[in-house]
Amino acid sequence: MKKLEKKLSAEPINFDSFFSEKAMLMKASEVRELLKLVETSDVISLAGGLPAPETFPVETIKKIAVEVLEEHADKALQYGTTKGFTPLRLALARWMEKRYDIPMSKVEIMTVAGSQQALDLIGRVFLNPGDPIVVEAPTYLAAIQAFKYYDPEFISIPLDDKGMRVDLLEEKLEELRKQGKRVKIVYTVSTFQNPAGVTMSVDRRKKLLELANEYDFLIVEDGPYSELRYSGEPTPPIKHFDDYGRVIYLGTFSKILAPGFRIGWVAAHPHLIRKMEIAKQSIDLCTNTFGQAIAWKYVENGYLDEHIPKIIEFYKPRRDAMLEALEEYMPEGVEWTKPEGGMFVWVTLPEGIDTKLMMERAVAKGVAYVPGEAFFVHRDKKNTMRLNFTYVPEETIREGVRRLAETIKEEMKRVKG
Amino acid sequence: MKKLEKKLSAEPINFDSFFSEKAMLMKASEVRELLKLVETSDVISLAGGLPAPETFPVETIKKIAVEVLEEHADKALQYGTTKGFTPLRLALARWMEKRYDIPMSKVEIMTVAGSQQALDLIGRVFLNPGDPIVVEAPTYLAAIQAFKYYDPEFISIPLDDKGMRVDLLEEKLEELRKQGKRVKIVYTVSTFQNPAGVTMSVDRRKKLLELANEYDFLIVEDGPYSELRYSGEPTPPIKHFDDYGRVIYLGTFSKILAPGFRIGWVAAHPHLIRKMEIAKQSIDLCTNTFGQAIAWKYVENGYLDEHIPKIIEFYKPRRDAMLEALEEYMPEGVEWTKPEGGMFVWVTLPEGIDTKLMMERAVAKGVAYVPGEAFFVHRDKKNTMRLNFTYVPEETIREGVRRLAETIKEEMKRVKG
Repeated sequence: MKKLEKKLSAEPINFDSFFSEKAMLMKASEVRELLKLVETSDVISLAGGLPAPETFPVETIKKIAVEVLEEHADKALQYGTTKGFTPLRLALARWMEKRYDIPMSKVEIMTVAGSQQALDLIGRVFLNPGDPIVVEAPTYLAAIQAFKYYDPEFISIPLDDKGMRVDLLEEKLEELRKQGKRVKIVYTVSTFQNPAGVTMSVDRRKKLLELANEYDFLIVEDGPYSELRYSGEPTPPIKHFDDYGRVIYLGTFSKILAPGFRIGWVAAHPHLIRKMEIAKQSIDLCTNTFGQAIAWKYVENGYLDEHIPKIIEFYKPRRDAMLEALEEYMPEGVEWTKPEGGMFVWVTLPEGIDTKLMMERAVAKGVAYVPGEAFFVHRDKKNTMRLNFTYVPEETIREGVRRLAETIKEEMKRVKG
Repeated sequence: MKKLEKKLSAEPINFDSFFSEKAMLMKASEVRELLKLVETSDVISLAGGLPAPETFPVETIKKIAVEVLEEHADKALQYGTTKGFTPLRLALARWMEKRYDIPMSKVEIMTVAGSQQALDLIGRVFLNPGDPIVVEAPTYLAAIQAFKYYDPEFISIPLDDKGMRVDLLEEKLEELRKQGKRVKIVYTVSTFQNPAGVTMSVDRRKKLLELANEYDFLIVEDGPYSELRYSGEPTPPIKHFDDYGRVIYLGTFSKILAPGFRIGWVAAHPHLIRKMEIAKQSIDLCTNTFGQAIAWKYVENGYLDEHIPKIIEFYKPRRDAMLEALEEYMPEGVEWTKPEGGMFVWVTLPEGIDTKLMMERAVAKGVAYVPGEAFFVHRDKKNTMRLNFTYVPEETIREGVRRLAETIKEEMKRVKG
């Protein structure tokens, strides 16, 4: 092969001049950038959001993968329909009926490339620029990123130990109604919230649904951690109470099988699924079929139900270790949530401490966390942080919390002094 | 679990009232809807765009999948970086250097969820509403769909047997320049085009690059069929001639491994890749890692290079059968392309015949095709169709073409009479 004979103009290309206005505004996720730094050092990272690889059911996956290739290669390796691999969709519908008492007849299921894709699709399908969307304060960082592209007006409603302050939401809805504004979507990570670890109480779930009917909005219920309960009583998803199709439920295999398959699902009213399906056609044609076929056998043959207790058994001591260490090491004035499940504890430091500025000193002491600011759409809380307890072993968690407490004590002195 | 005690208002929900303006404009792909109809009958379908499952290297995939799970489960089942699984990115860079003489030092590679995702990302990263984008006439249907969401001004440039009429493009660029408009992107399926089957000549490739420098645009070169050459001399990709980073090359494993993994890649200047990477973060976090790990071993261990000749050997007789049958059965006045590779033949009927209207009668005779109209952004050509020759066996292709020729003959009479 010969190179182009006629020499092309050697002027440097101004690549930035090609980007769309929206692309010029896009920023890399701070957390992802931060994690890159931490990865390369010997810092104890409580910053990540990764499941522990020890929880991946590797032998089961191997068995299933071979079965899928021996029995279903033609379909599992081919393009699939946009709505998803039908046997998996059916298996999930049955599983949700059995597990959450959500009647199969009331929902349609579409599979997606991880629930992150569902968040992007929700932005695409529902949000006009300027549309008000309600999120929790704090809320899932990547949901902010996904919705932000569609340029909505973010309304954030504070959380407490019982989840979203639905009373404050009601006030806000009333206020917006008076302004002639309509909220279309309320987004909640209802159970073992990311980042706060809290779970919305049953009363609030019911109240939220009542408000949805009264103020005519849809609820997007993101449930990635729902199965990871280490203590306390099970809380049914909001979708369980939803008689009319107000709730779009997002599920994922990332925490109950493995994230590497990128398989999530949406369970919602067929009318909504139909539009999301059309939107997905032009985005990626279909979700990876091979992963869907594996997920299908995993659910259908009962491996999922067998495996969930093992994940819980693995994570519970880590959650306990973190709560114990916080109790043991943290100085007066520091508060934290006591999650009954999930992956995260949310820590609030005394006012005046900026966890983003403190990060450098924490890393110098050999521990990393995620500064809380980025979890607030208005970036108005500087004194919070998210800690993860699923990725590193108990002893490391304890030592990490000890180092963190030391950093915080010094920071408290610094701020006072 | 108890149902919500306080009965919710039973008013029906007006789901349409929730959709964004753009969502209200979204339509299902006609071709996909059409294929659904055909699937259920015993019609010979020359309409699809699927690779033959017989070409999937199932045994190799099984071997690799087990290896990946035994040796790399921790990484292959975990979240990955947005840019892609590094060993795969490196393997692809080496493979493109060896195969196309594209220096590794000049490109960065990002993996995507099939090249369809790259098309959506390109729209997201480059297109403001109203931005002119050049596509071929006809062009890849799903590219129209992907770009359309971003509301550009489509400029379509006709094809002939040597690919895009670059001379007409030059005229158009000059005209637009006078109007003060700048084309940012020229999109081409350069080799064995979908739907037309034609390949852009080397002279035109070079000329296109010259124009890109002169008029300051980027070329998106979509290369899904590049490896499937059944006759004639290899044509280097436009990217091969690109010394300055004007070309964004899109590759995919869908036709050289299997579509079910949904693994594609983008090879482009690092500055462009960086922005696409940030855009992808909020869309799906990362491409499925398990599929990427399998694709990695497939390239790295030489299975890909071993397998390509087998796919060619399998498809060549089908291509030949279709061209022979067209020669044998088609009446005077019908023209078609003679592809040296790929999956499609493009047929042009006499003016006055509308292939969309004819479809029903073709199906009644037991054959289906894709009416050409949807491949034109302005939908201004009614007398064309796309035929696929990869999915059904030779004898079936011959019989399909015979039935089609019969339909066309009757249609010609009907139109004349």
